[in-house]
Formats: sequence, structure tokens, C-alpha cells
Amino acid sequence: MSEQAANKGGLEGVVVADVTTSLVDGVNGKLIYSGYDIEDLAANALFEEVVFLLWHVRLPNAQELEELRAKIASEASVPPQIIDMLKALPKDANPMAVLRTAVSALAHYDPDSENLTDKAVAQEKAARLTGQITTISAAWDRLRKGEEPIAPKAEYNLAQNFVYMLSGEEPDKTAVDAVNAYLVLLAEHGMNASTFCSRVVTATGSDMHSAVVGAIATLKGPSHGGANAEAMRMFLEIGEVENVEPWFKTNIKEGNRRIMGIGHRVYKATDPRAAILRDRSKALAESSGNSKWFEIADKLAELARADEYFIERKLYPNVDYYSAIMLYTLKLDVDMFVPLFAMSRIAGWSANIIDQMAGRLIRPKANYIGPKDLKWEPADQR
Amino acid sequence: MSEQAANKGGLEGVVVADVTTSLVDGVNGKLIYSGYDIEDLAANALFEEVVFLLWHVRLPNAQELEELRAKIASEASVPPQIIDMLKALPKDANPMAVLRTAVSALAHYDPDSENLTDKAVAQEKAARLTGQITTISAAWDRLRKGEEPIAPKAEYNLAQNFVYMLSGEEPDKTAVDAVNAYLVLLAEHGMNASTFCSRVVTATGSDMHSAVVGAIATLKGPSHGGANAEAMRMFLEIGEVENVEPWFKTNIKEGNRRIMGIGHRVYKATDPRAAILRDRSKALAESSGNSKWFEIADKLAELARADEYFIERKLYPNVDYYSAIMLYTLKLDVDMFVPLFAMSRIAGWSANIIDQMAGRLIRPKANYIGPKDLKWEPADQR
Repeated sequence: MSEQAANKGGLEGVVVADVTTSLVDGVNGKLIYSGYDIEDLAANALFEEVVFLLWHVRLPNAQELEELRAKIASEASVPPQIIDMLKALPKDANPMAVLRTAVSALAHYDPDSENLTDKAVAQEKAARLTGQITTISAAWDRLRKGEEPIAPKAEYNLAQNFVYMLSGEEPDKTAVDAVNAYLVLLAEHGMNASTFCSRVVTATGSDMHSAVVGAIATLKGPSHGGANAEAMRMFLEIGEVENVEPWFKTNIKEGNRRIMGIGHRVYKATDPRAAILRDRSKALAESSGNSKWFEIADKLAELARADEYFIERKLYPNVDYYSAIMLYTLKLDVDMFVPLFAMSRIAGWSANIIDQMAGRLIRPKANYIGPKDLKWEPADQR
Repeated sequence: MSEQAANKGGLEGVVVADVTTSLVDGVNGKLIYSGYDIEDLAANALFEEVVFLLWHVRLPNAQELEELRAKIASEASVPPQIIDMLKALPKDANPMAVLRTAVSALAHYDPDSENLTDKAVAQEKAARLTGQITTISAAWDRLRKGEEPIAPKAEYNLAQNFVYMLSGEEPDKTAVDAVNAYLVLLAEHGMNASTFCSRVVTATGSDMHSAVVGAIATLKGPSHGGANAEAMRMFLEIGEVENVEPWFKTNIKEGNRRIMGIGHRVYKATDPRAAILRDRSKALAESSGNSKWFEIADKLAELARADEYFIERKLYPNVDYYSAIMLYTLKLDVDMFVPLFAMSRIAGWSANIIDQMAGRLIRPKANYIGPKDLKWEPADQR
């Protein structure tokens, strides 16, 4: 790769937009959404409050919050054609691929899908999609297990509806609080790859469903949304607390594997979300009586924290590390972790998409290193 | 917008990859694919030859070409579940939205869709998708007109199959040659927005179907793939050759509209594809006995060429301008122009996707301009 491309290939440090949504301060390990520390929001905010904040750059008053909650809940149902489509898919399909297909198909039934320019209409579509992504995720998890999907309830918030639509039972408060905290923590994060993708799509004048589909396609990648599932698979491979030390020795110190969920492109001090999720997953481990996975994760993090390789490179647990434990303890299937990430990140995606509308085409440059000046010869003379 | 973001928002001149696929020389108005001038390829190459060239950085010999043609043709059929899905969609759906949904759904039936790392397997998937995108596009055009889709023939090349699957009749040579030339001309073009999107998706480790779905979502935008359809809608609005001058005066000189299909972000001398397409559309106008649209386009281009505004800004007809005329004269519906673009550009997308596999995460930066240091207050105190 040319030096120029090698430096810029990942676009590190290249500013592509002014934003009011989030500030990722990697040096100091801080994350703020539109002015508020993530710690404050994770401790206090309903997910819908964060959605409002990212869209309007201020927190809602009580009435505005209730209006947005009610709108998202009441528009969270999906057309019966989408449920029929889900029913026809192979049961072993990847849930993120299913979400990608279903969100793309939602456009065909959204009367505003081809309105490409009106920002108020875009916000209505974003509110619909915020609810619908949750409904599709829960419906798919039931359908693939041979169960009928459950429709969302208009009186629930999104975290309640997700827990309810998975089980069909009145949602448990501990589970709802944990899901809500996860949704708040993952809602937005600077110019991450899926958000950037949604801007690249939008900048051509394409529609909101297209931009969200592109974002889902990007989030699906193991280096982005797939990382907490990878972390959980690693914890499952370790299996028992007493295996942590020998596993670390064999695979990390003597092998060439890396610890999934440790290290982050941006955060070099600490990932502020990891500390919050560690507390949450610890509390959940205790209240559920299943603390094995928390203990495995904490033990492994301790080994890494004391290891020169990790210290030198400033590698700390990131948001994926403890969220894996928390979601697994909530009995969520590992391959449903990424759809839950999408359920949250639609907040940041939609805020960025609306901001990018009518913006400049995003078209970088390639550095040509192929042959030149070749002359055509017919195939039978080659 | 901050100065930094304003400069970089469109990523002009920012190199994101070394490529062997194409060199876009805007200053000299030249385009080469892996060493060959676009003029040479448009005059001589079968689309499948260009696909091979972009994938392997050399032209195929006769046997290799026949093998690739046969593979693409024989794998161009789509599973019956996809046809059923298309049949269930509203007939007025946007064909690019339909293509986005259907290509996403193809992943559920591709046994290799979740193989994320093997480049040889990726190339097999790319060959399948190359055929399948054409089949889906033609099938949708028939289905929405109440006609049954037609399966591709194993002995045809892709241009033949497209013309055949649209009409069900033995493909006419003039039409096939025009479609083939269009497919060759549009197959690849530097780091355009949809190709870049496919790289952003791939760089997270996501799968080929996801990357192609992201590219389709991006190409759908009016500022990218939608431009030739917009150009044709403009020609249709003008309607008659004698309307060109008054239309130009009212809408361009005295109004604030712009001529769709004139001007290009990169080409400042001439778009080499436009000259080829002008010749093709002129020939087609003559052979079809329908020269009205060619005359309108040529007259409007002449007015722009003589106008100071266009001269100063180096605005010339681009690839979309005359391709609109050519495709319309072939009796293709205007909203099928963009799917035809996708049928071609899958060649460049797939070459770029395979090149990007295992590459670095593409994650630029946002410049935060929102509020800071706000303190949480409960909703009822706001």
C-alpha cells in the first residue's frame, strides 16, 4: 500500500462532519451526548430521553418525553407483510442479515419512504424505525424458535417492549433497567463506521431506509457490532473461572490471539461505558444468582491489567467486554447481541442522517497502482 | 460548519485505498480500467471480459472468458423464495429499493453468505451476485407489469440475458450491443460513493451481501446513480427540440435550476464515457427511427457549450447525459436506469470489496460543536 493510502486508509483523524450529537474524548476516557456525561445519562435517562436529546440537542420536558415514548411505541408495529416475510426465511439465518432484509422491506410499506428532502418527515420515519427495529428483532428471535411474534404495547417504553416481545410475559424490572441502560450507552458514538456509512449513503440524496440498511450492514461486521458477541463466545470457550489463567497463558501470552472486548481505536485511557457496564453486570450477576460469567470476565480483565503488553499499548476493556456478560446473564442469545446494538444505535444513526441530508457528496480518492498503457488484443490472441 | 469539516466533509482528494481497478484522470478526461483505455474496452469488450479484468488485473484468454460467462449465466437464477418475495411487494415500489431488499434476502439462501474471510469464496459469491442482480432487475420489471418473470439462459451473456429476460423474446443485436456497451462503461469508476460505501461496510469484517446492499443503497441516491434518470426526466419535460432554447433561457439562464447530467466532481476536461455514449445514442436514434431525444439532448449540450457560465466552471456532459437517451431509446422505463447501473457496477464493487477484505476499519472523525458540561435534571424540572 502506498504511504498515503496506508496513513489514510482508515481515515483516522480525518474530520468528516461537525456534529452536536456526541463528543468522544479518547484521551480522557470521556463520552458526552449533546452536553451530558454518559455516566449521568446511564444512571438516569430513559432511552427515549436520549433519542430526543440526540435529535433536538436538549432534553425533553415531561410532556415531550411522554409524546415521543408514545409515538415510538404506537408506531413500533410492523406491517403483516413483514411478519409474513420473516416467517418465510430460513430459521438459521443470521439475525443481523434478517434485520437488514426486513428494514429494507419496511420501506415498501412506508408512505414516506421516497420523500428524500423533508427533515420533519425524516424524523417521523426515524421514530417509526426506532420502534420497528425492536419489534423485528424480538419477532425474529421468537419465529426462529417456532413461536408466534408478539405485538408491541402502546403503553410500554422501548426497553419494556423488547423484554415483553421476547417472552410474552410482563417485563421484569431488573431486565428492563439493564436493557434500558444498554440502549442508552450504545445510542451514539462519534463517527463510528456504521454512522459514517449512513452519512455516505445519505450524502447521495438517498432515502432514510437506505441509510439505515447501510448502517445495519456495517454494524453486522465482527470488528464493529459483532464484538460483544465475539467476547461472549470467548468467555464461553473459557467456561470456568479456574480456566482463565491457563487460557490466558496459552492463547494470549504464548499464542497469538487477542482478548475480544479489550482495546479500542479511540479510547486510550478507559472506555467510560465499560465501568458502568461492569457495575451493572456485577449487580445483575448477584441478583440473578449466576455470577460465573462476571467472575470469568473480571478475572481475565485483571490478568490483562497486570500485563506489560496490555499496559504498554493502553488496552482496557471496552463497551463490548462487560455488555457481553450483562446481555448473556439476561438470557439473550449471543447472536441477538448485535440486533440489540442496532436497536440502540438507530438513535445516533437517525440524528446523523437527518443532519447529513442535503449535505455534500462524500467521495474520497483512490490511488491507482495498476498497469498503464495496455493495448487491446482479441481474446483468441491472449 | 467548521473550516476543517467544510474542507473534508466530502473527502475530496483524501486517498482511502491503493487500487488496481481504475484510474480516473479528471484533468485529462481519461478513464482506464486496469491498464486499458475505456474507449478500447467500450469498442471491443464483452462485459464479462471487464469483470474478469477488474478481478484479475488482466484480460482473460478465450477459455477463461467462456468459463466466466458460463458461470455468471448459470448462477444467474435466483431461488424461488426470492421470486415469491418479489411477488408479494407493492407493484409501485421503487426498483432500487426492491433490488436492495432482494439482494439482502439472497444472503439467506447463499450457503457461503457468512464466510467472511475467504477471498476465493468471495469471488464465487460475486459471480453469483453479478448474474442475480440482472435477473432480479428484469424479473421486477415484468412482475410490476403483471407478467411472469423469465429465467436466464445458460448460453447467453449478461447483456443478452437482460434483454431476453425483459421481453421474453430472442434478444435483438442492436439492443444487446448497446446494453453491453453501457455495462462496460459503468462497471468501475475510482472511489465513487457506492464503491466507497462497500469498502466501509467490508472494513468492519461484514459479509459481501451486506457490502453490496450498502452499495445499492448508496447508488440509489439522485446525486449518484439516480442522475441519468433525472436527466431523462428533464429531457421529457423539455419534450420537443423547439422547446430547448426557451427552456434553457427560463430554467437555467433566468432560473436557478441546473442541467442534469452536465458537470462532474472529477472530470474537468471531458467525461470520456460521454463521447462514447453520444456516438452510441446517435447511432441508436438513427437505427430506431426515433431521434427526437438525441436531438433534444444534443441541442441542449450545444447551448451549454457556448455559455460562459458552463465554460468558466468546466461543466460538460457526463456519463449520465447521453446514457439517459440511449436507455430511453431502448424502451427501458426511466426508473429502471439505476438498476441497470447496479447490474454494471457490481463488477467494480466486488473487485473493491475483495480488495478491502481484512483491511483496516474505516473510521473517520467528527468535530463536536454541541453544548458541554450540562447537568442532569429530572424531566419534571425541565
